[in-house]
Amino acid sequence: MKIIILAGGGGTRLFPMSRTNFPKQFLSIEEDKSLLGMTIERFLKICEPKDIVIVTGKKYYYQVEEELNKIGCTETNIVAEPCPRNTAPAIALAVKYCIDVLNTDDNEVFFVAPSDHIINPIEKFCEKVIDSLEAARAGKLVTLGINATKPETGYGYIKATTAEGKTFKVDRFVEKPDYNTAVEYLKQGGYYWNAGMFGFSQRTFLDELKSHAQQLFSYMTTKSYDDFMNEFVNVSSISIDYAIAEKSERIAMIPMDIYWNDVGSWDSIYDYYPKDDEGNVLKGDTKIFECKNSMIVSNNRLIVGIGLEDILVVDTDDVIMVSKRGESQKVKEIYNEIKDRNEAHDHTTCSRPWGTYQILSEDAGYKVKKICVFPGRKISLQTHQKRSEHWIVINGEATVVIGGDDARVVRKNESIYVPKQTMHRLMNFGQEILEIIEVQNGTYLGEDDIQRYDDMYTER
Amino acid sequence: MKIIILAGGGGTRLFPMSRTNFPKQFLSIEEDKSLLGMTIERFLKICEPKDIVIVTGKKYYYQVEEELNKIGCTETNIVAEPCPRNTAPAIALAVKYCIDVLNTDDNEVFFVAPSDHIINPIEKFCEKVIDSLEAARAGKLVTLGINATKPETGYGYIKATTAEGKTFKVDRFVEKPDYNTAVEYLKQGGYYWNAGMFGFSQRTFLDELKSHAQQLFSYMTTKSYDDFMNEFVNVSSISIDYAIAEKSERIAMIPMDIYWNDVGSWDSIYDYYPKDDEGNVLKGDTKIFECKNSMIVSNNRLIVGIGLEDILVVDTDDVIMVSKRGESQKVKEIYNEIKDRNEAHDHTTCSRPWGTYQILSEDAGYKVKKICVFPGRKISLQTHQKRSEHWIVINGEATVVIGGDDARVVRKNESIYVPKQTMHRLMNFGQEILEIIEVQNGTYLGEDDIQRYDDMYTER
Repeated sequence: MKIIILAGGGGTRLFPMSRTNFPKQFLSIEEDKSLLGMTIERFLKICEPKDIVIVTGKKYYYQVEEELNKIGCTETNIVAEPCPRNTAPAIALAVKYCIDVLNTDDNEVFFVAPSDHIINPIEKFCEKVIDSLEAARAGKLVTLGINATKPETGYGYIKATTAEGKTFKVDRFVEKPDYNTAVEYLKQGGYYWNAGMFGFSQRTFLDELKSHAQQLFSYMTTKSYDDFMNEFVNVSSISIDYAIAEKSERIAMIPMDIYWNDVGSWDSIYDYYPKDDEGNVLKGDTKIFECKNSMIVSNNRLIVGIGLEDILVVDTDDVIMVSKRGESQKVKEIYNEIKDRNEAHDHTTCSRPWGTYQILSEDAGYKVKKICVFPGRKISLQTHQKRSEHWIVINGEATVVIGGDDARVVRKNESIYVPKQTMHRLMNFGQEILEIIEVQNGTYLGEDDIQRYDDMYTER
Repeated sequence: MKIIILAGGGGTRLFPMSRTNFPKQFLSIEEDKSLLGMTIERFLKICEPKDIVIVTGKKYYYQVEEELNKIGCTETNIVAEPCPRNTAPAIALAVKYCIDVLNTDDNEVFFVAPSDHIINPIEKFCEKVIDSLEAARAGKLVTLGINATKPETGYGYIKATTAEGKTFKVDRFVEKPDYNTAVEYLKQGGYYWNAGMFGFSQRTFLDELKSHAQQLFSYMTTKSYDDFMNEFVNVSSISIDYAIAEKSERIAMIPMDIYWNDVGSWDSIYDYYPKDDEGNVLKGDTKIFECKNSMIVSNNRLIVGIGLEDILVVDTDDVIMVSKRGESQKVKEIYNEIKDRNEAHDHTTCSRPWGTYQILSEDAGYKVKKICVFPGRKISLQTHQKRSEHWIVINGEATVVIGGDDARVVRKNESIYVPKQTMHRLMNFGQEILEIIEVQNGTYLGEDDIQRYDDMYTER
């Protein structure tokens, strides 16, 4: 059994908490656990870390690795797409990875799931996954259908017909309906939400590609994994639903009558969290007076709510969102307006392969950053033309090289100066995280004033 | 003519923008102009800076001085109360200052005004002040009454009767009414809002104290200004309305039919600002989608509003307030709940006699501050037992003394280290503002780990 987790989404429906470079799957909904982390842990009830393959975008590689380190899954596989091509190519690339690298054969069964949904209880979900894999072994292309409980217009539907053991025959897949149609579906019954989860055997997958997705089939059968990866940019962008599921004659559905939330908007998150007696959800440092049916998510500031009803407040270091409940999906309209601004893409704390940095303060002539370097990581050898840097170590131990000098160790409460136009490198050979405060001085402080002298994977 | 401006209020009705140590009068409603600054500029149409006496609390002395510097009023007088005792003692102390220090005589006329109201247009207001002073010269105790335009329950009322030239006879002062009574007042007419502004001659003021406020009269006539100041703590706390205005037989009212706003809540501020076509007030970095009749005041973050109606959002560095319109005065309930927290008293940027400091980041073992020292100012000679400090100059020029060393100059882009338990001092002898980034390291980083070796007025 192999579990393929799709973690390449760059969605920004949860802006301002999600950003282009910090999409929804990395968001923590439960304390300190990202949606991706929760997804992985859900599958670890029925498989080993090494049986999981995470497909993600190249730029998210280190964030995924960091998530895996957090939950101790260092043997889990990561497939890093060079560019986004929707779900069918992503799944095909992951299956190809399994064939070429993990040596799976035609009898291997796969379960594919998104990385950014909430599902409860885990045990019941796992039963459904096992049922799916059983049907997959019997040659079915299985999808899980969520019991529709309200006339939801945000999801695609699956129309099921008669039962055949644990699976149902599928009449058809339906695009997101309008409200009246959704009401009608609910009334008629037999309609399920399409949750984007599939089970199949390697043989079925290849057969279905051969029948319905010749380009992908050709990549799978005539190229090596490395060549598929290298030529990925040439693959047509298409969803797995549209490529094979909607066309396949082996399609079957297993209904899933448990809690499922696609976390598609701040309204979905409000729905998910337990409420107080007044219907409020309060996270972090908050104080309210006469509020009801509202949600306040504080980051590290005190948020005060007075007389609010049906209001959602979400705070981050550099953006605050205040929305009427039921309207929060319209945050995409705002996102489109600001997509040229830094706030659309990064938090004030940015992830890098070697750690993180956070801008604490900046104005004409200076910038102050807090830089964290993970144990064993280093920042590339580099120079800046227009800025000098003062580094003060506040935690851990830095090994630095400046100009032609030998490497030297800078300890907690020690500082060092990097003049402009001087080659320098910062390394953490210690066991602890290295934290430094960097004070930049200069006439130009853009991130692009940098010349690097070694490999991109330590890029800054 | 002397103008007494009452700037001792510690009100927090505009929390989170106002704090105990940054009350309403220092708040900027128009760009870069505090309410106090606007009040002073209003009177400068009819008097000289030296004719103005500002009564404030001792702890606000340097903030008042800073405001005066900003508008070039270095000759304006400041009377710093050692403790708050309401308006009657504050006014008496200011009058006593005029008698003892400015050598005013019994014929001098005074106009008393709060420092934290908005009044427009200035020219019409000045006419009313001049009318008041004329009536004051004729022996009246004059108050200005604002034409009531709505059934407001937040103000005291003055019931006026017949006109005598430019003044009206006063029937009585009325406490804040309930809504139905306020509606009745508006219907009946002859009721005016009490704006806390008074005109009187020195003779009248002393006479009225003699008749109605013997303790204050005794301080005024048997003590020196210095003794009055030193014994101020023993004076009974009482408002000028209650002490003499409500009891005086010389009371007269001049009606004022111009725009007046006591800026008593965020709702008043919403009322004051011009609105866009949808009734929205947007200040700073904001983006809205389908909002109406709402106000968003951004500090330095992007604030996104979606589908909001009748919502007020006010952001500061460490506290965000989101309130239903019409409910914002209830922020005092929240304020009372958090009054033991630092956020109740200070912004992240704190004023000090020598300048300001802002905490940029703090966590176990370290704290990062941006420190600004005004030209010509210095920070007291001091030591810390448990922390060392790294200083990096980002603007201006620092003169520092560390341990037994001679004073040395640290220029922009230079740094210096202050070991723990080492005496040090930071001075700005330059013409420019001195800005430094301070990185503290230590086991304890409280502001109280400090021993000072010189005068309190350079305290840190």
